[in-house]
Amino acid sequence: MSSRYTLGLDYGTNSVRALVVDVRNGREVGTAVWNYEQGDHGVLLARDPNLARQHPGEYVKGAEKAIAGALRDARKQVRGFDPAQVAGLGVDTTGSTPLPVDAEGRPLAFHPRFKKEPAAMAWLWKDHTSVAEAAEITARAKELRPQYLAKCGGTYSSEWFWSKILHCRRSAPKVFEAAYSWVECADWIPAMLTGTEAPERLTVGICAAGHKAMFHEGWGGYPDAEFLSALDPALAPLRQRLRPTASTIDRAVGGLTADWARRTGLRAGIPVAVGAFDAHLGAVGSGVAPGALVKIIGTSTCDITVSPLSEPLADVPGLCGIVPGSVLPGAYGLEAGQSAVGDIFNWFVNYLKPGGPKAGSHEALTAAAARLKPGESGLLALDWNNGNRTVLVDQRLTGLLLGQTLYTTPGEIYRALIEATAFGALAIINRFEEYGVKIEQVINCGGIAEKNPLVMQIYADVTGRPMKVSRSPQTCALGAAIAGAVVSGLHPNLPAAQKAMTGLKPKVYAPKAAAHGVYRELYAVYRTLHDAFGTSDWHGNLHPVMKQLITLRDKVRK
Amino acid sequence: MSSRYTLGLDYGTNSVRALVVDVRNGREVGTAVWNYEQGDHGVLLARDPNLARQHPGEYVKGAEKAIAGALRDARKQVRGFDPAQVAGLGVDTTGSTPLPVDAEGRPLAFHPRFKKEPAAMAWLWKDHTSVAEAAEITARAKELRPQYLAKCGGTYSSEWFWSKILHCRRSAPKVFEAAYSWVECADWIPAMLTGTEAPERLTVGICAAGHKAMFHEGWGGYPDAEFLSALDPALAPLRQRLRPTASTIDRAVGGLTADWARRTGLRAGIPVAVGAFDAHLGAVGSGVAPGALVKIIGTSTCDITVSPLSEPLADVPGLCGIVPGSVLPGAYGLEAGQSAVGDIFNWFVNYLKPGGPKAGSHEALTAAAARLKPGESGLLALDWNNGNRTVLVDQRLTGLLLGQTLYTTPGEIYRALIEATAFGALAIINRFEEYGVKIEQVINCGGIAEKNPLVMQIYADVTGRPMKVSRSPQTCALGAAIAGAVVSGLHPNLPAAQKAMTGLKPKVYAPKAAAHGVYRELYAVYRTLHDAFGTSDWHGNLHPVMKQLITLRDKVRK
Repeated sequence: MSSRYTLGLDYGTNSVRALVVDVRNGREVGTAVWNYEQGDHGVLLARDPNLARQHPGEYVKGAEKAIAGALRDARKQVRGFDPAQVAGLGVDTTGSTPLPVDAEGRPLAFHPRFKKEPAAMAWLWKDHTSVAEAAEITARAKELRPQYLAKCGGTYSSEWFWSKILHCRRSAPKVFEAAYSWVECADWIPAMLTGTEAPERLTVGICAAGHKAMFHEGWGGYPDAEFLSALDPALAPLRQRLRPTASTIDRAVGGLTADWARRTGLRAGIPVAVGAFDAHLGAVGSGVAPGALVKIIGTSTCDITVSPLSEPLADVPGLCGIVPGSVLPGAYGLEAGQSAVGDIFNWFVNYLKPGGPKAGSHEALTAAAARLKPGESGLLALDWNNGNRTVLVDQRLTGLLLGQTLYTTPGEIYRALIEATAFGALAIINRFEEYGVKIEQVINCGGIAEKNPLVMQIYADVTGRPMKVSRSPQTCALGAAIAGAVVSGLHPNLPAAQKAMTGLKPKVYAPKAAAHGVYRELYAVYRTLHDAFGTSDWHGNLHPVMKQLITLRDKVRK
Repeated sequence: MSSRYTLGLDYGTNSVRALVVDVRNGREVGTAVWNYEQGDHGVLLARDPNLARQHPGEYVKGAEKAIAGALRDARKQVRGFDPAQVAGLGVDTTGSTPLPVDAEGRPLAFHPRFKKEPAAMAWLWKDHTSVAEAAEITARAKELRPQYLAKCGGTYSSEWFWSKILHCRRSAPKVFEAAYSWVECADWIPAMLTGTEAPERLTVGICAAGHKAMFHEGWGGYPDAEFLSALDPALAPLRQRLRPTASTIDRAVGGLTADWARRTGLRAGIPVAVGAFDAHLGAVGSGVAPGALVKIIGTSTCDITVSPLSEPLADVPGLCGIVPGSVLPGAYGLEAGQSAVGDIFNWFVNYLKPGGPKAGSHEALTAAAARLKPGESGLLALDWNNGNRTVLVDQRLTGLLLGQTLYTTPGEIYRALIEATAFGALAIINRFEEYGVKIEQVINCGGIAEKNPLVMQIYADVTGRPMKVSRSPQTCALGAAIAGAVVSGLHPNLPAAQKAMTGLKPKVYAPKAAAHGVYRELYAVYRTLHDAFGTSDWHGNLHPVMKQLITLRDKVRK
């Protein structure tokens, strides 16, 4: 019986998914999703709307349930499937989602004294409690270590590793003192599966460390002790307990423990790849390569592309990060993103609950929005309900809706919100190209790309570019399985594994010229608002904005 | 049996109300409301969201139903009540609501060939189809007759008489040609009741003519023929058919016809006062006097005050009008207003239908909004969903909502919309005082002032002034009845009638210092947005706006 499958384990914001993949052709033969049980769909909230945490117990239970479920499913789908045919696995998670651990690498949240302490949980990527610390780190780095900022867009984010740790130090000192170290979720899961959680044995992935923790081989790993001490003297001792090297996803962390083999049905000892963020492995699972931008569209959007290490690359201001090897070995990984996309639509549906009992679902609102022409509503929105990750790197920005009359409908607003995210997407593509990173094709993946043709068509019409969609509906898990295929030796390297295991859907959304013409005008207004509200060096005149929208509305209605 | 009652007839946007009042003490002894039957609650709409018309048949049927109903009600309420005790009546209507009539003064809408023609209907106050014509009239007047603009805030509105007629001339020439003349609804109703509709017999009220048609005794009535010809040669002949004089509401138009006496149960021949706009008579019914600002808060808001003719008065830029005698004889009537107030709340409830089945009513949203502290939501809105009548005089402005996160609730938005209308109200008070019209007290009336204590408290907190509420829940109709009391000789003049017939509720909404402090900061942000989006000479920097809101939100949450 030959080993010809690998397994991808994908930790999202609300659930964990396991996927069994045939390494010869990318066929997905078994899958299972386990929804987190605590809080609001797995997210622990508080009165402070910036707080978003997760209990690491969800991760343990989720691995067991999802892997066992996927193997069961594969047995149903494939005659003669044997879990022993699974040769390896890869892991992706949300991030930056650091969690405090003790000297054995055990999460503090598992200690009885901290079991209900929010600061002892995993600090979910979208936790924005650390805005002040992010500003402080940015300011200190500008002053002392400008090179630290150059690779992460010029601004250190409140969503990232050090901001969260520093905020814990200040807001929950008992948790900070009890923490022997801090581990990214993306590193902790592979360590858990292989019994390598102890900080001195931990394998750190370059994806999380490089994009979120200012880790760079060129300056010896994490930020130096002097810089960390300047932020807070308590950070320097922590640095000594963090590993000085970081690995790419084609390397194995170790072998699956006998305990985890028993709990899941997998073979003990199969290699577990170095973990990475969901978006980065989603890009791998979508066939990311030089010239190809992969948009992973979910609650937020990540935009990932790569650029060969052999070619010169400018620092691109406003990007979340430029990290050698963070996506594919041998290439810079470039990450941009929008802090909320599906989350904005979800906000409208779940918090505003518009349209009465029948007209307020995503489906009904999409249908209403689809009946409108670009520009017809006179509305324009900014896609900043959760801040702006790229180009402005400012989590404290908020949403804006402009152009309401006494007759504005939920469908019009829903369309304006979709368009706002499309304008945000275009701003990112433009930023890449302004700095010499050519985008020759755009490949979309994630739930919204899968399920909502209107969103894809609006993205094509706004950007003036064809929108392709990844063949797999679960590219993050597929990317993790691809890493598993490389670490298990079933493929020699990532590009070879991608070639065998990824593909595109036949349907390509082509931009329509008339719609694109209208959206070019709307995008100019979006940029005016974007620059007026988002940049500090703006001194223009906002007055024409509303008139332009109405003139345009009147024009397209004729 | 002594005559001691008068009747007020109040034509609103959606219904007509009749009110029988005891002239000795203002006691309201009988009332009835008749809801219009056609279109959307009486408003005829079309695909063009700017169009809002009304069929004059509603006015005829409404007078009959409402008067008869009010008399029936009075018979129930007062032992021995006899309709013959009603000594006179007054009329108020929406405006500017002009309608085209034939040579007998009969509305063109009553002609079979025009019975479904929108241009032959009454052009409701909130019809905004005539934006281009308003701009043209403003430009021509600036060039040729700047004095015409000085008394109406510097800008001629799309809501007003000549804009609508000129738009009819261009967009519906057959109706324009068939129209012998045009009559304001406020003049047509008294004429209908007294059989004086024929254009050469028509009595024109100074309120409508002076505020909306650039009528001024000082320059001989309506705008001169040369100016009108410069707008369109077809307007000069129309001017010849308009009456050159205009009257105050203490004058009678004539006596009730025998036919109308039969249809309503009133005595034939009782005097009918000159008509005026609802807001102006609402101000009379609320006790308007020098130093007292009356806010009539309904779907829109009108702000009315008066200033003695004996005192110097500057032209106040941005006001809807300054007209001698338009409210009280012997005083300038000053009118300002907000194009939408209740309409914005109604839009949110009826068009967005937020909050699911139980949380989306005005009552539920008010309760949710009341649980919030000023500034807590981080939201700020502009109250321009229907344009800005005062100070900007720009009907093409639109709404804006700023500060949304992923957790923003309907109650938060509802409160932000209330606050936006309060900021708009403060901008008007400030404008009055900047030009020397001292506002010593604010008296509110209308449905929202009656029914929503939260709105009144927010108005007090935002303006830093006590909010008083008129005793009568139907001050417009009461004001009309007061005019009826003067023309019938039961009171010698309007101030004497007001003294006897008006009053305040005991509850006064006092501003709270802490809330006012927060609102002072929010108002500064509102003014920034107001000036940035609403004025052409603005060159400031919008960047701090969102940060100020969040800082403030965080501050008040502590």
